[in-house]
Amino acid sequence: MERIKPRTLSGFMELLPGKQAKMERMMEILRTTYAQYGFAPLDTPIIEDAQILLAKGGGETEKQIYRFTKGDSDLALRFDLTVPLAKYVALHYGELAFPFRRYQIGKVYRGERAQRGRFREFYQADIDVIGDGKLDITNEAEMPAIIYRAFTRLGLKRFCIRVNNRKILNGFYAMLGLTEQSGDIMRTVDKLDKIGPDKVRALLISEAGVSAENADEILRFIAITGGNDQVLSALEGYTGRNEMFDEGLEQLKTVVKYLSAFGVPAENFAVDLTIARGLDYYTGTVYETTLLDHPEIGSVCSGGRYDNLAAYYTDKQLPGVGISIGLTRLFYVLGEQGMLNPDLPTAPADVLILPMTEDLSAAVTLATRLRDADIRTQLYTEQKKFKAKMNYADKTGVPYVLFLGEDEIKAGVIACKDMTSGEQTTLPFDETLARIQAGLAERNKGTVILEK
Amino acid sequence: MERIKPRTLSGFMELLPGKQAKMERMMEILRTTYAQYGFAPLDTPIIEDAQILLAKGGGETEKQIYRFTKGDSDLALRFDLTVPLAKYVALHYGELAFPFRRYQIGKVYRGERAQRGRFREFYQADIDVIGDGKLDITNEAEMPAIIYRAFTRLGLKRFCIRVNNRKILNGFYAMLGLTEQSGDIMRTVDKLDKIGPDKVRALLISEAGVSAENADEILRFIAITGGNDQVLSALEGYTGRNEMFDEGLEQLKTVVKYLSAFGVPAENFAVDLTIARGLDYYTGTVYETTLLDHPEIGSVCSGGRYDNLAAYYTDKQLPGVGISIGLTRLFYVLGEQGMLNPDLPTAPADVLILPMTEDLSAAVTLATRLRDADIRTQLYTEQKKFKAKMNYADKTGVPYVLFLGEDEIKAGVIACKDMTSGEQTTLPFDETLARIQAGLAERNKGTVILEK
Repeated sequence: MERIKPRTLSGFMELLPGKQAKMERMMEILRTTYAQYGFAPLDTPIIEDAQILLAKGGGETEKQIYRFTKGDSDLALRFDLTVPLAKYVALHYGELAFPFRRYQIGKVYRGERAQRGRFREFYQADIDVIGDGKLDITNEAEMPAIIYRAFTRLGLKRFCIRVNNRKILNGFYAMLGLTEQSGDIMRTVDKLDKIGPDKVRALLISEAGVSAENADEILRFIAITGGNDQVLSALEGYTGRNEMFDEGLEQLKTVVKYLSAFGVPAENFAVDLTIARGLDYYTGTVYETTLLDHPEIGSVCSGGRYDNLAAYYTDKQLPGVGISIGLTRLFYVLGEQGMLNPDLPTAPADVLILPMTEDLSAAVTLATRLRDADIRTQLYTEQKKFKAKMNYADKTGVPYVLFLGEDEIKAGVIACKDMTSGEQTTLPFDETLARIQAGLAERNKGTVILEK
Repeated sequence: MERIKPRTLSGFMELLPGKQAKMERMMEILRTTYAQYGFAPLDTPIIEDAQILLAKGGGETEKQIYRFTKGDSDLALRFDLTVPLAKYVALHYGELAFPFRRYQIGKVYRGERAQRGRFREFYQADIDVIGDGKLDITNEAEMPAIIYRAFTRLGLKRFCIRVNNRKILNGFYAMLGLTEQSGDIMRTVDKLDKIGPDKVRALLISEAGVSAENADEILRFIAITGGNDQVLSALEGYTGRNEMFDEGLEQLKTVVKYLSAFGVPAENFAVDLTIARGLDYYTGTVYETTLLDHPEIGSVCSGGRYDNLAAYYTDKQLPGVGISIGLTRLFYVLGEQGMLNPDLPTAPADVLILPMTEDLSAAVTLATRLRDADIRTQLYTEQKKFKAKMNYADKTGVPYVLFLGEDEIKAGVIACKDMTSGEQTTLPFDETLARIQAGLAERNKGTVILEK
């Protein structure tokens, strides 16, 4: 037979079982965390009408999108989870209760140039709260709590949720008479971490057309740093000059005010006036989350408040606030950094039963009892030498191997080997089960991410 | 702004939150059940190289597949989970431990003609066990146990796992000298339920080119019914005439022998000689699962033993056994039949907090405490009239609403309304929490599928 060399497309993540087990843990943590805040799981098609996905259009999107025809249909693969959400809410408006809170963890597609750590198929893990006409600021205050809980459960401690408010920025630029240039200015300011204040100042003057005085004013403004109280009180100095600025400051104060009631420690949160989020889309609170020991990764959870989710599909005003985690990239980076906990069990089974008798009835019954007790159990029945069987146990990393021969069956006991300690016990079913349950609880205590 | 009418493509399932919650429950049950048998979760790309997906080729597949180019790449969307598994095992052969047990619940794509209840994007929920060179019959005996546990947990009782062995069929046709026609014969016999024995006999003679004597012989053979012991003992009458037949019968006896040790009750299992599974692919045990009260749906979980998973990609002999549930179609049909339990909570939150104070600190703290106790909690902070807030609670179906006003905060209590009974209590946090936990446990007791 003519054979085809098997391969997986470049830019598409395909994990071996051990790594996949860790990815599944991460997804499960995100699912349960999002659910804890009352978000409904949603699942929209991966293929949509191309006209709908491209309603907004725009250069990068049109270049990167996977678009094709089938019969007469002009189809495309979703490139994010926000556009499908906008379509969903516009389409099912009458059947939803607002505020509508949904989470979606799903694959999206972007035909980017292939490069290390860039994916063409990747998971996004998004939450959004959509209001009908209005949406209270408390929803914006709640987002850091969700990020904090999700990241903490994953095992991260050294991260910072950096928050700003677009109204403060827009109001500030309006004060200086720079409303029209504000987009260019913010894109320039965004480079501060990379190129430093002097070059930012030069670019503001040469490219954004800002006067030297205003450039200094801008640099003084974005240099406001310190604890949340310090930053907020420095901002108070600008009040009374622009309504939008004042409104943004009030919102930011509300977000900060409820932090501790939402359970977010001060050290994991910072008001940061340099955060703008490139998109024109955001109109209020904006979020970025960085790992303190890995600033080079950039933001691993970003989002913000927007005023109009679905303007391309409906005349309903649908303001919202959302955050998104680029899960595939995050998982890849954590792996590269050696931050995925190597001590967590990743074997598909907790227990491997090696029957030592020709008739397997006793071994099968044992497997059924263990499964009834919620122990993930594999029955190994291949005709192999003992050594090959133990190699299999080692290769899969199964934590317990049970041996069941005539002697054990007669005596009503099970021989159980702890594959980590090497310790072997020969005990009745209940005691063996209790030992396994306790050992698994101990082994599964760790978090999926480990900071060094 | 020019608006585009929002729509979801025909043949693509997109559920409202209440229904989605039920679908999520079904998927979660399948995931945990498959894991209990030691299957590793796998996640392969939805897009693959078209050459790889179409290695086998074949008419329907080529017509239905979503195939397109991006740059120079000839790409396609997977149309099942078996071909990607074959590629995966061939590609990662050296890094896997065999037998390799994996489950995958994922979307697949077939551009079928749109019709009611047919989907172009649908979930399959598959498990397979892949051996390296050989695979023991016990793996085939275990499959009915997995189907039984999964279906029982979903809430089904009145179903039958029907099992046959292709070696018995092939051996039997060889006895009659009909090996070459066996494919045609099996396709004709497959129509027995629909057209009855007389028409099957006529077709066997007119279309499959079988003699009248052999047609009678075939009809006598497939008329063998009754309890498992009766069928097996009737089959004993054919032994000694064909080696393959004898081997198939031994295998079938092994499958039946271990049933009760695997926990499968006799009433949910039947040896059925009419089961062949259309594909040439299967070589040993084959499975179909039917709902006794809905035979019109056909098989809802099918599969079987095959000898060579990945012949198109590798010269390794990789025998396996697997079963597949067409989850999207099953979910659709259950909904149509009114079999999805209406009493299960489907609200995204267990508790909705309605703060009655201007300062929300106490309400936010309450929400955080409830979330710490694993209660899915939504804080409702929109500025609406009381009636609108209660309408929201009704529309989402949230089981408990908590009210927190100045009086409650001063007294250290929470007013809690059970939205089902209408009963209202005013109790301290711990007692309120205990009441909610007990109520939720009771509400979540039911299964997702209800038989009438």
